Amino acid sequence: MTQNDATRRGIGIILSSPSGAGKSTMAKRLMAWDPSLSFSVSATTRAPRPGEVEGLDYFFTDRETFGQWVLDGEMLEHAEVFGHHYGSPRAPVESALGAGQDVIFDIDWQGGQQIRNSALGGDIVSIFILPPSIAELERRLRSRGHDSDEVIGKRMAKSESEISHWAEYDYVLVNADPDTCEAELRTILTAERLRRERQPRLSDFVRGLNEEFRRRQP
Amino acid sequence: MTQNDATRRGIGIILSSPSGAGKSTMAKRLMAWDPSLSFSVSATTRAPRPGEVEGLDYFFTDRETFGQWVLDGEMLEHAEVFGHHYGSPRAPVESALGAGQDVIFDIDWQGGQQIRNSALGGDIVSIFILPPSIAELERRLRSRGHDSDEVIGKRMAKSESEISHWAEYDYVLVNADPDTCEAELRTILTAERLRRERQPRLSDFVRGLNEEFRRRQP
Repeated sequence: MTQNDATRRGIGIILSSPSGAGKSTMAKRLMAWDPSLSFSVSATTRAPRPGEVEGLDYFFTDRETFGQWVLDGEMLEHAEVFGHHYGSPRAPVESALGAGQDVIFDIDWQGGQQIRNSALGGDIVSIFILPPSIAELERRLRSRGHDSDEVIGKRMAKSESEISHWAEYDYVLVNADPDTCEAELRTILTAERLRRERQPRLSDFVRGLNEEFRRRQP
Repeated sequence: MTQNDATRRGIGIILSSPSGAGKSTMAKRLMAWDPSLSFSVSATTRAPRPGEVEGLDYFFTDRETFGQWVLDGEMLEHAEVFGHHYGSPRAPVESALGAGQDVIFDIDWQGGQQIRNSALGGDIVSIFILPPSIAELERRLRSRGHDSDEVIGKRMAKSESEISHWAEYDYVLVNADPDTCEAELRTILTAERLRRERQPRLSDFVRGLNEEFRRRQP
């Protein structure tokens, strides 16, 4: 019944939201809450932003290498956004899931669709995070301070298209308050782990109960 | 997004466990936690035990009336256990679900199967509660003090058969500690309510976001 059961394959947890609705903050908070979680670090051809760390925020690479990884089937999903390529390297995800670790994907709807259709094994939980309002979404984007008006305009246009895919997800949250949103994410993850098919040790446990029944019979 | 959404049909929550594993205590705790929950009070032909209240613990009735209810299609499920008939009256359940209230069924595996196969609408979450051990199960049965050795022997035999149906349920909990078990039940219910298809007002909310997008365009 423990989370790190060697005979249990991990769950793939897809977190999507428009830029500024909080999915990256929420992913970081979940990682801090449960250190047994694994985070799928994306590869990208865009340049690092100030403070971003190689291998932690992204694997930064060039177009040629990225293209080769795609051709070699090393990417679970990949997409081009604003002229840069992004993708989820397959090997670390397969390794974590195989070790029974649940893996968080901080990806957009295109990535979510590709992961759901990939050979990951099908044990996927998908969560879409909506902003409380578009005004608040824009305010959060501007408060980051690293985008020009033009880029913010583009991000808002992309947000509209991102939001149009909300109905493809298992769960939908409205992030009006980060603490509430985090609590809801914890709740979803804790409940999903209590599903029967995610507790492979239950069979042994019930076998033990049945043996106890047999021993007490005269 | 609120729980009592008039356009949202309630969830049927099936709680099953062998006698003594705690399902009735857990059902009462859930009802105390969330007064918006509705409890499906069973009808039975057995006599009331001391302290049991008509309409709260059971609807007590005679065989003839019970049989007529079954013939009239008034029972969602019914079964005979130790010579007494038990069943879930349909009308109060349909009424609560239609009003958007989630309904708890404290029933055995036979009842669970019949509810799942009934015309309830299919929105069902089923949870099986296992005892931590058979010794503990027997201890809890004996501590109630209202059953003879013979009845306890029969209950234990029925428990073995009940437990053999654990794998038919969506979630399985081991009730080693009532507070933990209650917290897990709350978690499951809270998460299930966050599923997209259980939040019918989301469509209106997203429509509002889209209108906001259109208003901000030049």
